[in-house]
This record gives sequence, structure tokens and C-alpha cells, in this order.
Amino acid sequence: MAATAAVLPSLSPSSSAASQTAVFLPPNQRFLQSLRQTSLGGLSVSTPGGSKRRSTTPLRALIAPDGGELVELVVPEVDRPSKQAEASSLPYIPLTPIDVEWVHVVSEGWASPLRGFMRQTEYLQALHFNSLRLADGSVVNMSVPIVLAIDDLQKEAIATSSSIALRAPSGELIAILRNIEIYKHNKEERIARTWGTTAPGLPYVEEALTSSGNWLVGGDLEVLQPIKYYDGLDQYRLSPAQLRKIFEEKQADAVFAFQLRNPVHNGHALLMTDTRKRLLEMGYKNPILLLHPLGGYTKADDVPLQWRMKQHEKVLEEGVLDPESTVVAIFPSPMHYAGPTEVQWHAKARINAGADFYIVGRDPAGMGHPTQKRDLYDPDHGKLVLSMAPGLERLNILPFKVAAYDKSQGKMAFFDPSRAEDFLFISGTKMRNFAKLGEKPPAGFMCPEGWQVLVDYYQSLSTNNNGSLTTQQPKAVASV
Amino acid sequence: MAATAAVLPSLSPSSSAASQTAVFLPPNQRFLQSLRQTSLGGLSVSTPGGSKRRSTTPLRALIAPDGGELVELVVPEVDRPSKQAEASSLPYIPLTPIDVEWVHVVSEGWASPLRGFMRQTEYLQALHFNSLRLADGSVVNMSVPIVLAIDDLQKEAIATSSSIALRAPSGELIAILRNIEIYKHNKEERIARTWGTTAPGLPYVEEALTSSGNWLVGGDLEVLQPIKYYDGLDQYRLSPAQLRKIFEEKQADAVFAFQLRNPVHNGHALLMTDTRKRLLEMGYKNPILLLHPLGGYTKADDVPLQWRMKQHEKVLEEGVLDPESTVVAIFPSPMHYAGPTEVQWHAKARINAGADFYIVGRDPAGMGHPTQKRDLYDPDHGKLVLSMAPGLERLNILPFKVAAYDKSQGKMAFFDPSRAEDFLFISGTKMRNFAKLGEKPPAGFMCPEGWQVLVDYYQSLSTNNNGSLTTQQPKAVASV
Repeated sequence: MAATAAVLPSLSPSSSAASQTAVFLPPNQRFLQSLRQTSLGGLSVSTPGGSKRRSTTPLRALIAPDGGELVELVVPEVDRPSKQAEASSLPYIPLTPIDVEWVHVVSEGWASPLRGFMRQTEYLQALHFNSLRLADGSVVNMSVPIVLAIDDLQKEAIATSSSIALRAPSGELIAILRNIEIYKHNKEERIARTWGTTAPGLPYVEEALTSSGNWLVGGDLEVLQPIKYYDGLDQYRLSPAQLRKIFEEKQADAVFAFQLRNPVHNGHALLMTDTRKRLLEMGYKNPILLLHPLGGYTKADDVPLQWRMKQHEKVLEEGVLDPESTVVAIFPSPMHYAGPTEVQWHAKARINAGADFYIVGRDPAGMGHPTQKRDLYDPDHGKLVLSMAPGLERLNILPFKVAAYDKSQGKMAFFDPSRAEDFLFISGTKMRNFAKLGEKPPAGFMCPEGWQVLVDYYQSLSTNNNGSLTTQQPKAVASV
Repeated sequence: MAATAAVLPSLSPSSSAASQTAVFLPPNQRFLQSLRQTSLGGLSVSTPGGSKRRSTTPLRALIAPDGGELVELVVPEVDRPSKQAEASSLPYIPLTPIDVEWVHVVSEGWASPLRGFMRQTEYLQALHFNSLRLADGSVVNMSVPIVLAIDDLQKEAIATSSSIALRAPSGELIAILRNIEIYKHNKEERIARTWGTTAPGLPYVEEALTSSGNWLVGGDLEVLQPIKYYDGLDQYRLSPAQLRKIFEEKQADAVFAFQLRNPVHNGHALLMTDTRKRLLEMGYKNPILLLHPLGGYTKADDVPLQWRMKQHEKVLEEGVLDPESTVVAIFPSPMHYAGPTEVQWHAKARINAGADFYIVGRDPAGMGHPTQKRDLYDPDHGKLVLSMAPGLERLNILPFKVAAYDKSQGKMAFFDPSRAEDFLFISGTKMRNFAKLGEKPPAGFMCPEGWQVLVDYYQSLSTNNNGSLTTQQPKAVASV
């Protein structure tokens, strides 16, 4: 276990006691509460404002946000009344729930240095190059178009304004878009270049694109107040700035992000635990895991956010993951299911939240082809593309080791091809079928209480609506 | 007309007499012969080997090839017998005419630093990022996949070899491909990401992709001898190395490339002449035009290469372009008709031939949508994408000024919106229709002898095969 100190410039960690005690708990943070209950060491609480540094030892700084500075577009409280008044005087565009999710994403700087919905030059660079060149010549990754579609009538209504207001589906004003630019929305080209197919049945396309307008409007966002969903989960929606503060207070010298949109089984847990072990072996003293479920739009047959969060909570309560070194938060982006294109977005956004390591699995952001009997993407392309993506050179990509159920040990373990017959691969589909039918997976596949959450979810489906699924998305999108 | 000397480091041109006299003429170079006939100054001839420099004044170096060194993959003559013997012992893949065009393109370094058909990492970078990151971290543009498709049986036949031979359609051995890598050919994804549509009817797709195999084979090329077509036009197929030699011998201090796949009308000529004027105004002393018609595969309703070359020759004979400062050569690439994606390839390849200025028009490499009544690409996207493309930062992009027929002057002129009613726009379709019907375009649209070539072409069609069109491609692909 020789420490490879060369990769750790000026690393001077404080005592391990200190690294355990400084943590920011948002109000009613159930995860961190449950961490406290299950923790071996005691956790103390500090608020974001109260930065009681326990050590003056210089810390290794977190990875810098793309563009050098974290974008934050929520209007300062003192200015809100005047901005609100201005917004109510402007022509407005009504947003869809997914549009609001993008306002949320951009307002908190996940897409830094992007400051609003894309104008045409940004859109074209995202489509063609999966990256943006900045004024200083540097390049940041940006693989997914973040755009706002409007129709002909809306275009006409705002064409003479340089600023417009944006309203949530509830009607509430949530933002001003300034210095707008209107350009054509060629949906076919956008779909082909983003998804690598134009086959009907792509979930995000059907949900957000097919019936959207033929124009896009770009501009700079000013968001009137933090975006909230009032679904009992807002306390997990930590912004990049909040996450960075937590990592700093925890004195993290490495942050490794794990993106997921599925329940956590013990194979995932093994992987995350193993990653931490590898980072410690590399010489890092306090690697922190950002367990970061995606919280925006997901397709109908994914497990909804509410249930996933319940399941994650059980996993943590049962001690499957180390609560000391784990931060759980919701990533507010909607899901594209765009495979190698989207995984870059997932990774890039986490740089902005302070992560310098990113765990990438088999077929990230992938799904079945909507009209053919095959995976939409080559399962290896995601990690290959990610490892070569422009603007992600600073990020350490950690490819997933394959975990499967080891029948000889009765637990999830890394697959050993020399004794392949000992391993059982339990796909997401197989897992869902077990849960739907109320069957138990092999002992050791998932912690029992976590599994029970899934069983409860599928039972609630068959009870409530004959098992039919609807699009999963936080329902109430509104602001205070 | 102040010279902006800042853009011209260490520029010390020789006398204008010298710049007129040093020129490499390949054998039977009809263009340059005709230039000689029409030239005001006398041209002297030197062979590629005989580099009689008329001046020792240090020249401003030509733009460096991508990757720093021009790739040249034709085996030295001394090694040919042994390589030929080796090739004949290897399992082989029969090439299509378009495959051979790509072998030609790569062998001469148009795609530098690419050294063969793409392996998977290069292919994925081209598809997703339109660029390749090199070992030193630098980035070169590479927007179009240059790949070799094979079918299941061919894959099986070569799977155990690390090197394979490539044969022309004639059966002749033309190259060895070394250290091969076989990977999946997902045609749908390749088409969607390259063309931004998967609509049926894309010419290159129908010609080269639809019936191609489900695997791609990448590797390093060794080409057994220079690729020749024996169609009477080989003397115009100058390699990047040959072009660079000409530009150096002409003591060019700026090279501006004009890609075309259509007959040259006086609007084009005006643009090229005007570009030279602008470059002179910028302080360049000897800007050279590379008039560079595309010579590989083109779609059935484009004017075939043979006829276009005849037409270009007439244009030069009639003195529409200045023969002193013009080099005409054939660009051997096949045409993708992939708009903003392809225009990057067209520009990048010309860097490798020494061009540091690139003229880009409206809707470059564009065409009508194959199934909808609209342009496939937004006509402005080509130049926008080109101006932002990774790896092309060194290239000066010169956007096309719009030229149209000015009725008040009876000639082609730059469009003046303040007197729009004076201008007549003659589209390619309109031009072709005039020629098909044997009608005369307005005087001053095109030089009369050039026009006659087009009329002859369309008459030959209706005489020979009832006007039906077939795919245009150099027929005889073989080597000495």
C-alpha cells in the first residue's frame, strides 16, 4: 500500500477527528441524520454560514469549476422585489416541468460557465463538438444542448423584446432571460446528433421534443429565487456551491462521484467501497463519495425518485456504505438517455460540484434501442468517449469493475472470469421482475430493507393503477 | 491600403519576377499549359526534383500540417518488390472505388496525422467531437469518419492476421493495412451523427454505407504505389507535398483555398479575385489561389469531374482568373454532402496542402433534404461551425460574399441590398436547367466557352442515355 505521493501536490490533511466532525446538514437532512444514527464516530452539525474550521493546515483545493468560477444566477434577495416587478412587466414564456429543471440546473452552475439557455453558437458547438471554446481559448465540455423551445406564436409575442420572463407551469414567475436570441429548432438534426438515432420512442424526445416549438430562444438567466419542488426532497437538492462547502468542511482531498438513476444494490456498494480503498492506496487521506442520484425527468419504467431516495436511505441506514465518507444529494438534471453523449454531461456537472473522480459503468445513460432488439449504444462506448472527451481532461475517470452475484460466497463480488460459473448476473430487468413478483433476490444482493422498498413500490403500482406506469418527474415545480 | 505588417512575421518576399517564374508543372499539365498560353508574363518550368530557387531571401513558411509533419504512406520504390510479395501472401479485403479514394486521400497526408483507416478511438472522436486529441494533448480537426467496412465473412477471414492486404476493384494489390483492429459498424449511429439525419436518400450513404458490412477495420496503411486513375486527369491530382512545393516555389506568403464541386461562374471568379485583393490589402505580397475541385465520388446530378475540369480550363483560358496566382488541382476526396460536418474536413485537408485561408460559401457541402422540401442544413451553419471548429483555429476562414447577376451592370457583382431589385439570383438548379434546355444565361454570368462545356455535357447526356444520370466517379481505379 505504498502511497503514490506524486499525484497529491501539497496535501497536508488535518487529523481524522477533524475530518469527521465538520459537516453541513441542511434542515431535515434525513440521510445525514440516518448517517448520524448509524455512525460509529459522532457527527457534529454546522450550518453553511458557520464555518468553524478545525484546522488551519492548508487543504488541497477542490477541482476548479469549468471556466474558473462557479456560475450562480439566483438574484440576491435584496434585488428580488425590483426584479420580480420587472419580470411581471415583460412578455413571458410558459415553461414545461423539464424546462424548469434546466433553469434549476443552470441557475446553480452545474453547467458552468453556461449562464442561461444556449444561443446558437453554443448550441452548435454542443451538437457538433460536445464542447464550448471560451473567450480565452480554453475548452469546456458541454455535450447536451440546454435549450428553450418556443413556438411560432410565442416567437412573435417576444420578438421585439430583448428580455423576457419565464413562468413555471403553476404560472409563477421564476426567471428573466436577457439579451435573447431566437434561432431555428431543427429537431431532426438535434435528435440525430444528440442520440445517434432518430428512431421513434426515445423517452426525452417524446416527452420534451416532439411537441416542442420550431424555435429556440437563448439568453442570460436571472432566476428570481432558488428553485424548489416541495416534494419532501428539497433538502437533498444541494447546489454545487453547497456541495463544495461540505467537501471543504469535511477536508476532502479527493471527491469521487457516483451517478445513478437506479436502486443501489450491493454490487454498487462494493464498487464504491472499493473505489475509496483504491484512492486511499493512491495516497489520498480522505476521499469522499458523492452518491448522486439523478432527480429530474426519468422514463416511465425507471423507479421514481421518491422510492429511490427511500431505498438509498435504507442502504445507508443498514451501513452498506460508510456514512462518514459519503455525501448523498440529488442531481437536478433531467435524463436524456443519450449514452456516450450524456455521460459527458453527467461527469462535467460533477466537476462543477467539486468532484475530481468519476465512476463510469457499463453502458452509462444507455437503454434498449426503441425499435430494435439491441442496446441503443455499444456498452463500452460510454467510458471510451468519456475518457477522450474535450474539456474533461482534468477529471479522473474510474471505469466500473464488473460486479455480479458470487454464488460460492453468497454475496456480490467482482467478477472473476477464471471461475465464471460461480457468478450470476442480475440485470436491472431481472431485479425489477423479482420485485414486481414479490420474489426475493439471492441473499446478499441487496440489503433487506432496501429491497423491501422496491417491493413496496411495485406493489403500490399494482394496487394504485393496475401496474401501468407514468412518466416519473417531480410534480410540483414552484418557488416560494 | 495600409499594410498590416503585424500579421506577417518575417515576410521578405522576393521580386515579383521570381514569384512568376518558379512553378512545378507535372507532365501534360493542361491547366498550366493553358495558363502559359494566356499568361501575360512568361512561365518557366521546373520539375519537382529540380528546385532551382531564384532567391535565398527567407520565406514565410507555409502553415504546418496537422500534427506537425505531413503523413506520406506510399512505400519507397526500393521497398516495393518486397512489400508487394508480402502483400500477396496476406489475406485481403477487396475495396470499393470509394474505399480506394480514401486510401488515396490518407496515403498523401490530406488527413494528417491520420496514418490509415480509423481504429475505434479515432472513429469515436471523429463522430462525437469532430476532432482527435494527439499524444501531446494538442487537437486536430477530423470531422468525417475515414473507415473501412467489412462483412462477417471478411471479418472471419482476417480475424487471426495482424496485417491484411487491400485490393482495388480491378483485383490489383494496392496496400497493406497493419496492426488491424476490428470493431462494430453501427451504421445508424454513424449516419445520424455524421449527417444529422437518418432519412433515406443521402447519396454517400446509399452509395457507400447501406450495403456495407457490419464491421470496421482500422490500421496503419502502407500503400504500394501512388494511386492513379488513368482517366486523363491524373496530372491534376497533386498531393499535399506537391502543392506545398509549388507554393514554396511560387514564394506564396498566403494560400487561399476554394473548394468546389460545381462549374465556375463569374460570381465565383469575382469572389476569388476579390479575396486576393483583400489579402493584398492586408499586406500579403503574393497570395496564391488554390482552385481545388473535388475529384472523388459525387452524386448523380452533379456535373462529372471530366466536364467540370474542361469547364475550369476554359475559365482559365479566357482569363477570368489570374493564371499567375492560381494553382488548379484535384482534391481526391469523395463527397459526403454532410454540410457543417463535412466542410470541416474540406478545410482541414487544405491546411495539410499548405492553405492558411479558406473561402467558405453559403450552405457548404449542403443539398436538399432527401425527403422534405427544405435544405438539409441551415445555410449559415457551415460557416458558423467552421469558424468554431476544434483544430481549425490556425486557419483563416473567409466567408463568401453573396454574388448575383447585376442587371444594371450586365455582370456578376456582390449583392447590394440597397438595390436588391437590380439583382438576379441564378441557383445551381436554374443554371443546370438553362444548360439542359440549351438556353443562354444572361451575358456575363459565365465565360462563353465555359458555358458551352456545360451545354455540351447536358447534350451528351440526352444523346447517350436519354438523360438519365448515373453516379459520377472516376471509373478506372488502378495503379501502375
